[in-house]
Amino acid sequence: MAYATQKLAEEKVFKDPVHRYIHVQDQVIWDLIATKEFQRLRRIRQLGTTYLVFHGAEHSRFSHSLGVYEIVRRMVDDVFANRPEWNKRERLVALCAGLLHDLGHGPFSHAFEHVFDLDHEYFTRAIILGNTEVNEVLRRVSKDFPKKVSEVIEKTYHNKQVVSLISSQIDADRMDYLQRDAYFTGVSYGHFDMERILRVMRPQPDQIVIKSTGMHAIEDYIMSRYQMYWQVYFHPVSRSAEVILRKTLERAKELYHAGYTFKHDIAHFHSFFENDVQLDAYIAMDESIILAYFQFWMSEEDAILSDLSQRFLNRKLFKFVEVDPSKDWEKLIRLEKLFDQAGIDPNYYLVMDSSSDLPYDFYRPGEEGERLPIYLQMPNKELSELSRSSDIVDAISGKRRTDHKLYYPKDLLHEEHPLHEQIIEIMHA
Amino acid sequence: MAYATQKLAEEKVFKDPVHRYIHVQDQVIWDLIATKEFQRLRRIRQLGTTYLVFHGAEHSRFSHSLGVYEIVRRMVDDVFANRPEWNKRERLVALCAGLLHDLGHGPFSHAFEHVFDLDHEYFTRAIILGNTEVNEVLRRVSKDFPKKVSEVIEKTYHNKQVVSLISSQIDADRMDYLQRDAYFTGVSYGHFDMERILRVMRPQPDQIVIKSTGMHAIEDYIMSRYQMYWQVYFHPVSRSAEVILRKTLERAKELYHAGYTFKHDIAHFHSFFENDVQLDAYIAMDESIILAYFQFWMSEEDAILSDLSQRFLNRKLFKFVEVDPSKDWEKLIRLEKLFDQAGIDPNYYLVMDSSSDLPYDFYRPGEEGERLPIYLQMPNKELSELSRSSDIVDAISGKRRTDHKLYYPKDLLHEEHPLHEQIIEIMHA
Amino acid sequence: MAYATQKLAEEKVFKDPVHRYIHVQDQVIWDLIATKEFQRLRRIRQLGTTYLVFHGAEHSRFSHSLGVYEIVRRMVDDVFANRPEWNKRERLVALCAGLLHDLGHGPFSHAFEHVFDLDHEYFTRAIILGNTEVNEVLRRVSKDFPKKVSEVIEKTYHNKQVVSLISSQIDADRMDYLQRDAYFTGVSYGHFDMERILRVMRPQPDQIVIKSTGMHAIEDYIMSRYQMYWQVYFHPVSRSAEVILRKTLERAKELYHAGYTFKHDIAHFHSFFENDVQLDAYIAMDESIILAYFQFWMSEEDAILSDLSQRFLNRKLFKFVEVDPSKDWEKLIRLEKLFDQAGIDPNYYLVMDSSSDLPYDFYRPGEEGERLPIYLQMPNKELSELSRSSDIVDAISGKRRTDHKLYYPKDLLHEEHPLHEQIIEIMHA
Amino acid sequence: MAYATQKLAEEKVFKDPVHRYIHVQDQVIWDLIATKEFQRLRRIRQLGTTYLVFHGAEHSRFSHSLGVYEIVRRMVDDVFANRPEWNKRERLVALCAGLLHDLGHGPFSHAFEHVFDLDHEYFTRAIILGNTEVNEVLRRVSKDFPKKVSEVIEKTYHNKQVVSLISSQIDADRMDYLQRDAYFTGVSYGHFDMERILRVMRPQPDQIVIKSTGMHAIEDYIMSRYQMYWQVYFHPVSRSAEVILRKTLERAKELYHAGYTFKHDIAHFHSFFENDVQLDAYIAMDESIILAYFQFWMSEEDAILSDLSQRFLNRKLFKFVEVDPSKDWEKLIRLEKLFDQAGIDPNYYLVMDSSSDLPYDFYRPGEEGERLPIYLQMPNKELSELSRSSDIVDAISGKRRTDHKLYYPKDLLHEEHPLHEQIIEIMHA
Repeated sequence: MAYATQKLAEEKVFKDPVHRYIHVQDQVIWDLIATKEFQRLRRIRQLGTTYLVFHGAEHSRFSHSLGVYEIVRRMVDDVFANRPEWNKRERLVALCAGLLHDLGHGPFSHAFEHVFDLDHEYFTRAIILGNTEVNEVLRRVSKDFPKKVSEVIEKTYHNKQVVSLISSQIDADRMDYLQRDAYFTGVSYGHFDMERILRVMRPQPDQIVIKSTGMHAIEDYIMSRYQMYWQVYFHPVSRSAEVILRKTLERAKELYHAGYTFKHDIAHFHSFFENDVQLDAYIAMDESIILAYFQFWMSEEDAILSDLSQRFLNRKLFKFVEVDPSKDWEKLIRLEKLFDQAGIDPNYYLVMDSSSDLPYDFYRPGEEGERLPIYLQMPNKELSELSRSSDIVDAISGKRRTDHKLYYPKDLLHEEHPLHEQIIEIMHA
Repeated sequence: MAYATQKLAEEKVFKDPVHRYIHVQDQVIWDLIATKEFQRLRRIRQLGTTYLVFHGAEHSRFSHSLGVYEIVRRMVDDVFANRPEWNKRERLVALCAGLLHDLGHGPFSHAFEHVFDLDHEYFTRAIILGNTEVNEVLRRVSKDFPKKVSEVIEKTYHNKQVVSLISSQIDADRMDYLQRDAYFTGVSYGHFDMERILRVMRPQPDQIVIKSTGMHAIEDYIMSRYQMYWQVYFHPVSRSAEVILRKTLERAKELYHAGYTFKHDIAHFHSFFENDVQLDAYIAMDESIILAYFQFWMSEEDAILSDLSQRFLNRKLFKFVEVDPSKDWEKLIRLEKLFDQAGIDPNYYLVMDSSSDLPYDFYRPGEEGERLPIYLQMPNKELSELSRSSDIVDAISGKRRTDHKLYYPKDLLHEEHPLHEQIIEIMHA
Repeated sequence: MAYATQKLAEEKVFKDPVHRYIHVQDQVIWDLIATKEFQRLRRIRQLGTTYLVFHGAEHSRFSHSLGVYEIVRRMVDDVFANRPEWNKRERLVALCAGLLHDLGHGPFSHAFEHVFDLDHEYFTRAIILGNTEVNEVLRRVSKDFPKKVSEVIEKTYHNKQVVSLISSQIDADRMDYLQRDAYFTGVSYGHFDMERILRVMRPQPDQIVIKSTGMHAIEDYIMSRYQMYWQVYFHPVSRSAEVILRKTLERAKELYHAGYTFKHDIAHFHSFFENDVQLDAYIAMDESIILAYFQFWMSEEDAILSDLSQRFLNRKLFKFVEVDPSKDWEKLIRLEKLFDQAGIDPNYYLVMDSSSDLPYDFYRPGEEGERLPIYLQMPNKELSELSRSSDIVDAISGKRRTDHKLYYPKDLLHEEHPLHEQIIEIMHA
Repeated sequence: MAYATQKLAEEKVFKDPVHRYIHVQDQVIWDLIATKEFQRLRRIRQLGTTYLVFHGAEHSRFSHSLGVYEIVRRMVDDVFANRPEWNKRERLVALCAGLLHDLGHGPFSHAFEHVFDLDHEYFTRAIILGNTEVNEVLRRVSKDFPKKVSEVIEKTYHNKQVVSLISSQIDADRMDYLQRDAYFTGVSYGHFDMERILRVMRPQPDQIVIKSTGMHAIEDYIMSRYQMYWQVYFHPVSRSAEVILRKTLERAKELYHAGYTFKHDIAHFHSFFENDVQLDAYIAMDESIILAYFQFWMSEEDAILSDLSQRFLNRKLFKFVEVDPSKDWEKLIRLEKLFDQAGIDPNYYLVMDSSSDLPYDFYRPGEEGERLPIYLQMPNKELSELSRSSDIVDAISGKRRTDHKLYYPKDLLHEEHPLHEQIIEIMHA
């Protein structure tokens, strides 16, 4: 039998707290899950530093990836299977793209990518197309199959229906992470009626639309996103941890380029510091490596590297005040000077973090750009963009909400510090 | 105000998916949570290798410890507060013992302790009494307070009521881990009516007993334990991962003693290999260190160390067959010989794992010995041991269930292997 | 001991699927629950005809009333107890008002009240102040206690804090019914984080306000209301059942006044038809009486009464089309004529139902008028009306949404009917 | 298209809190649900008088019947569909039998059947085969189809596989009611992993067996039954309500035969009192009729009828003491005499209720006799009866647990009563 259509002797299931069970019938999917590149996702948390605020959020991209696969599977097998607008031959590419869409994520992805100027989408493609176990499995389907899977993930695939299953305003990716992140953090947001949403999805040429009778379920989903966004994804304290993570990596990189001699070999970071990251080095990099190096660095001579590393590991985070950069520039400049005076390097200890650069529609930190809008299919079969029909969606989708916070180590500015009073006064002015 | 009774300006809460919220009102608790030794528990998974079978089980001992604290808090503040049999002055020591009872766990605790002949209870005591942030906080309460907390955890404390809150057949420890492990794995077992159990708990001299009207809730709890035990804690596949973990560490230790030159400095393991583990080295050891070293070891020259490490990281596990050691010794000896012949070192690749050494009552792997039995308080105020009243408990508590499995790398015995047929035949004889 | 402060020997609990347990410690509450007027609420469904659409919605006002009591109890005992702005002496009146606020509801309340021009608030007062078991219990607290309880429910009580616990935009009444109705219907809306909302409630002179950090929890609650309103409370099919119920009762009343001789004694309806309802007759009226009479009426000679009764019992409901009364009057007049021509009495079989008469803020059918707005307490202690801070609330609160539906028995207009085509054509024009 | 295979234009769903959605694709099922005999099940509670103890248990046999149908549907469509041992042509008869299996239940079924010597199974058959809307729908499938459906429910159908889907130790009936009753009462028992159980069900000639890997899920289900049985179904307080219900009906019947003139026409009870119940009279009898007549009877002259009726409606229940009939006969005789002396008719006010007549395996009150045992299919394909493999099942299945309670109106024996002391003393001797 062709590998593409080969079924397991008996369906396998993974127990999943969000979808109850993940069902696998295809040999290809089973083999992909067993690859080392996919298993690596167990060592990368789904929500980066968020577990330092919501202690339940220790789940990995591995479980999220299985969840996305399962939702795509339910779409194509249970919902679309008998609809003429859906091309059944796209089933396997859709399943694989759902499973593998996050393959290239690095540790603590946003902060990490930022420091080393990397792009997880690039590495997703590289893993799928490169010399990897994943590629080997995909190539057994057909020679051009890896490329197809990669195109779906990159949104360049010719059939936009397939693309929109995993990359639209209401796709399997988001439906999984909202529910999963809500489940693991324990917040009461993030719940919506996915079963109903699946039932009202309709494949259309080049996209998936929503029967208008499902509008309220969609509103509920949009509200979940909105709440998760402000309550969880942009939580100011997990941003503090991210700031420290970023600054630690920057410090290490700076020391490297300054010729500093590390006590502990920095082999795993070499190519990252040199800005010449090969696939193997990238795959070898995960959150256990980061955390282990931070432990190594805690005992480095360099005071800043040592301090920042221990702050991250021991959760001695920075505090923050709100700032308005359009008005507060003077204040920031004065604070920089005072920090310098106080012997606290402002490059590492006075950090502004903005979430103002959000796109029109809300996203989680690190989530890629623009996605296709949601269309309702009205009873007369015409399509209508969601925010036209929904007051709620209209209310929350158009608005840009800027948010600037100034992070700093309040503990270093203890009351006996000679500049304490002055700094605090300016800080809260 | 005395530190022991100092309250936070405003109650703090942690969002918790199991108990909804963890409530902290005491400055002492707040300070303990912020110590680096407590934060370290974030880097040690609650269920060791179980996440390789139940992918949701990525939760840490940090969240479990908060959960145990919360249950103890509800007991002492909501249930016992106004009962004359309960001594209110024991409140803080009970809360601290609940929070800190797992402090000394090492990475993947059971397997790790086994290889290096360590005891997490010893290290819990060492952290509480040694030169640590935790000790510093506890000493601020009173000079002998660290010792008291330690005694409660060690079950030597004079007031057995307090001991039994965290170490009895139905204590805060178990009530948290059953619910938490069920939640994160997603299995449907592990649920019971904790609110009702708390309501029927009655402090008595030297112990906590259960009002007999609550017997069915207790039965349900016992059944949850029973099911979690067989379905989750002793899952044969996570035991396979544990076997590999153990064998990897043993190999590294053996190589060290054989004078092998490691490519990558084994600084963190030095004192473990030398059997001379100091507190700092122990605290520095966590699961990110283990996983990072396994990555280092994947590229070691030694084929066994390299192979075993990658098996663990890439989840290329051993398969197993059931064996009965009382009958199958000859078979085992023949297999050892055949493995030798086939060039597969049976010391590392043919491993028997037993769960026969379970005590009378069922425990999770790595859980300490005998706990106090459960007594029902009958309407006439007499006490009756639970299994006398409950058919179900009686049915499952007395039985020892032996379970021996022989683990081996089936993948190495591929069909073309000259000894393949012979080995497989004996294996399944 | 004074009756007002008398505690039960041991706390009693009711198992409740929404709040897990309802806790009763006060003798007064225990005695009120045992009165026949309170037990009568078991025979009045919480959601009227909604069970004919959402089959799970068979729950009664009895369970809702217990739920409201429990939420008030948690507010006053757990949240407000130690706040100086809360007057502890108001505790009992608050609990009683919460428990008894729905006491005067009749069967299928909205429709029933409408036909007989009754007001459940009038009867709540009448039961509390009249010659009833409830009054007897309340009077044992103090002579003026029944009046106080009644005033809280009527919102005329001097302490508006107490009033707002059960009658404001975010009160115990709504928090219970949203969660309860969601639970029993099984819809995924209706969930919000009540525990968090309770924690951010702050008693203030004359009202309860919300700490601004709780705004997102409030938004979530408002969204739940919005979704429940459109998805459940105003479901067009349960309105169809309500139309038939109303028309059945109207027909019976009309026949009575026309001197029709009922086969079956209409004793229970006598005073209702005569518009002279005494308290005893009102209390005797419940949904089992309505349903029993509908069974009696199914065998009446009058074809309309008989048909409408069996439609309700056997769920042979009317269908509907949307109409716009401002434009469609001509159409309606033509349809009336055609129905007349067809021998189908349009007074009973062509019924317009509007939900356009909704107040500024959304309510369930039958819910009383204007409630106090929600104020956020900002960090600087100033108050700010919710919709000023929340885009979402602003988006949905200001809008009046009209909804007119024309109900008619499509089954009577079967295809062979001579006027069938003409009627259908006009109907859907 | 043949009616038997006719599909709805679009699948219809009912929102269900237990199974999330009930899915209907078949025209036959849709038409059966719309019949008046099926709609009548909305007026019969699933758990009789249990709602007087667990206030959430107000759900009807209507929702349970839909639930059973849904589970059967999932078995035949999702689990068995492609198994050669399952005959697809049995699909519709299985679905219909699942849906209709409770059709003949009367109000408060156990007590009601007992007083009037009726059998709900007889009436289920009568409704299916008689002149009813249900029969009309079934006959459209084929002339002998009603008989087939009836045979499945009566367990005489030739294909025992089909029978066992709704009548075995682990059938759709029980799986629905355990989960549903747990959901509505709110107890934490009653949960088990139905999805897993469905996955391990295997059709075999003449029965359905369970793959042995599913044993623990089955144990969990058996434990749920055991707990529901003792915690909910045999709750002593709901048995008190049942005793009163039975005695009220017995009193009315006795009065009728004694020639008593009822104030209020007893038309609906006529044929029941005469022991000559026709199908129409039976169908017309439901719980609203019972409750309405109890209201009528509250104002009857006969003191016993009036008192018992109001006790039921106003929940003024009897108290109870445990008795052992094998030892306490003398005591009972003395109590009877004392009651007589005190002017309290012991025939109505001193009632022994036993649950000792339970069959070997536990059942809910009113549940029919012996069901097929559960067989595990071992890896070698042999069958093994469950209790042989499971210690737990073995522990609880073999035991007969007798339970005798003596119910009486404690309130009538107030302290001033001259015989009070004597009666109470004997009662508690």
